Amino acid sequence: MDSRFELYRSLAVRTPSKIVFLVMDGLGGLVHPDFGRSELEAARLPNLDALARESATGLSLPIGHGITPGSGPSHLALFGYDPLSYEVGRGLLSVLGIDLELRTGDVAARVNFCTVDDAGIIRDRRAGRIATTECARLCALLREIRIPGLEIQLQPEMDYRAALLIRGAGLDGRLSDSDPQREGFAPLPVSPKVEEATATADLLNAFLGAARERLRNESPANMILLRGFAQHQGFPSMRDTFALDPACIAAYPMYRGVSRLVGMKVLATGSTIEDEVKTLEQHWGEHDFFFFHVKKTDSAGEDGNFEGKVAVLEAVDALLPRLRALQPDVIVVTGDHSTPSALSAHSWHPVPVILWGRHCQPDSVTEFHERALQSGSLCGIHHVDLMPLAMANAFKFLKYGA
Amino acid sequence: MDSRFELYRSLAVRTPSKIVFLVMDGLGGLVHPDFGRSELEAARLPNLDALARESATGLSLPIGHGITPGSGPSHLALFGYDPLSYEVGRGLLSVLGIDLELRTGDVAARVNFCTVDDAGIIRDRRAGRIATTECARLCALLREIRIPGLEIQLQPEMDYRAALLIRGAGLDGRLSDSDPQREGFAPLPVSPKVEEATATADLLNAFLGAARERLRNESPANMILLRGFAQHQGFPSMRDTFALDPACIAAYPMYRGVSRLVGMKVLATGSTIEDEVKTLEQHWGEHDFFFFHVKKTDSAGEDGNFEGKVAVLEAVDALLPRLRALQPDVIVVTGDHSTPSALSAHSWHPVPVILWGRHCQPDSVTEFHERALQSGSLCGIHHVDLMPLAMANAFKFLKYGA
Repeated sequence: MDSRFELYRSLAVRTPSKIVFLVMDGLGGLVHPDFGRSELEAARLPNLDALARESATGLSLPIGHGITPGSGPSHLALFGYDPLSYEVGRGLLSVLGIDLELRTGDVAARVNFCTVDDAGIIRDRRAGRIATTECARLCALLREIRIPGLEIQLQPEMDYRAALLIRGAGLDGRLSDSDPQREGFAPLPVSPKVEEATATADLLNAFLGAARERLRNESPANMILLRGFAQHQGFPSMRDTFALDPACIAAYPMYRGVSRLVGMKVLATGSTIEDEVKTLEQHWGEHDFFFFHVKKTDSAGEDGNFEGKVAVLEAVDALLPRLRALQPDVIVVTGDHSTPSALSAHSWHPVPVILWGRHCQPDSVTEFHERALQSGSLCGIHHVDLMPLAMANAFKFLKYGA
Repeated sequence: MDSRFELYRSLAVRTPSKIVFLVMDGLGGLVHPDFGRSELEAARLPNLDALARESATGLSLPIGHGITPGSGPSHLALFGYDPLSYEVGRGLLSVLGIDLELRTGDVAARVNFCTVDDAGIIRDRRAGRIATTECARLCALLREIRIPGLEIQLQPEMDYRAALLIRGAGLDGRLSDSDPQREGFAPLPVSPKVEEATATADLLNAFLGAARERLRNESPANMILLRGFAQHQGFPSMRDTFALDPACIAAYPMYRGVSRLVGMKVLATGSTIEDEVKTLEQHWGEHDFFFFHVKKTDSAGEDGNFEGKVAVLEAVDALLPRLRALQPDVIVVTGDHSTPSALSAHSWHPVPVILWGRHCQPDSVTEFHERALQSGSLCGIHHVDLMPLAMANAFKFLKYGA
């Protein structure tokens, strides 16, 4: 275990104080050439500006200088987990979107629907890029397969891609892909990389045989390929590490999945930011840590939609008073990473952050945007350090040493 | 291997974009009591000031707070190699100045010419501090020695000091010094610290016997002492780690040596800064990473020559437009460490840095000197993080995780 986690565990105490992490996905932006400003600079954010004036602020590094993170690692960092120590295999990241609690020992893989000919040779590794709806129909077919000793989850992702999760006693994820990565070859049997994985390989090959039967008369997707096997090693929970009773409010499955990895209770919620605020209000008395996730800042950034991102920022700002009315003890406002609409992609740039609490030592920053935040007192901080800082501000950490 | 290197290797992609590191040795300075300003404050630097205004800037720590680095470790840090993980033994640092590509398994040592009496007892460990020219003449004599199974390089450094490099099959560098570190004793035989090093010790003792013969009639330097044995373990190359095709433009051998350690191609160049710029222009099409080294900022600093250092800074500034005319995608301007002329020595102070690129997020700094840069957005960065940041800005890193 990360040595910092041993420290946290020895210091964390349960108190009635409450922490909220308001995470706007892809929050950070850049000056956009067409607008001469960044999204945060363009947005009217009276409530966030006011909060910033009462807060310690800055720009925080999700993983490290120059690293553009995906949402999985960057959220783990926000929850205090160094993603380089707590690695999530690619197959596992794929299944985080399945609304299912991962358990230690579960094995996951990425799935491609493909087209094979009568001789079983792969002719199209992507089955003509079938639609997601077709992928969902075929996944439902394959979920009917029964293999004794194996619990099987199969969930469509996008187009011809799906995610597989298997659960059972004594599984071992050290397995080679069935995907030969080339057309003109037959799918490979799943092979154990170590002897201990032999039984798991046998179960998966039985599943693949049954899948071939079920898909025989389908077209163009009449077989599946498996790759990127990963076994969940189990993460320490936020409950154990931080003595918290944490809850997740997130409209998108991926973020609920990451939250489950660290032991959060996932609250059912609607798809709008206002739905999420209602969920927060309803469950306010039940938890002492809330991860509140806003997806659409990132979606707009990825679409290169400057004005769309501005609109989402303003919508969040407008709802901030309802969050403050609940009187949390500590509020952290930040993003998992930057998604500048000028780049239409995630980026490596550090992410705006506000840390508010009664004793947070406000700095000279008066506006919530990248340029102003460059002179904030938290500049140079890393995402993994926001969680202990929030814990301290909520008086949930004891003194270290005498 | 450093775990960050595994990450870099998994993210790095080859692209046509080009990165230039313009490294002014010993760049950082201090306010000089006789001038009331630092060298950078006194210098007229219109081109560097203009570049700073378009850039992310700050002061970068070469190794860590309070650590005054030599040029070896601080350059490794600039190239992204944590010098505490990628250690270069003292003997190896000495031979980096020999224009010879180090190979994995090579063994190096530091050499002192000394004076022994007729009974073989050391009377002067420094042979009266013989001149460097005399040292060079004696090195040439000793290079004629032939020991079967051993390729021998011997190169004068300064005064009575030289550097030895041996190459051969199955060498082992775990050897004790022949230098007893005191006068009044005979030189020691080189002894193996582990059994595997016995054969290497035998070869070196044969070389020392032959050296004694060759130097018998010389005066005052009639023997050599060896210390600081180190074996080159081989470093991962920048090509493997960063998917780059890197080149070095440096007039001084030591910097060419460090560049070779990390797999750069060393380009032949003249001794002036203008020669180096010409070399850059000539080879611009051939590489995607250029390390451009300016030595004389450091030399002037070491000499306590405030005005000399100012003049070198202005000369570099005047040539900057030619570098920019080549249209690099990313420019990093920095130094390996500080060499304030007020101290006439390397120092621990963080080093001015400019990171320029199309998406670098400029900050509020408008002038390129220590005081102005204290409010730059890169303050608190470490040298090892400049390389990944340059890679990201050149769009040479993929996203980490999904």
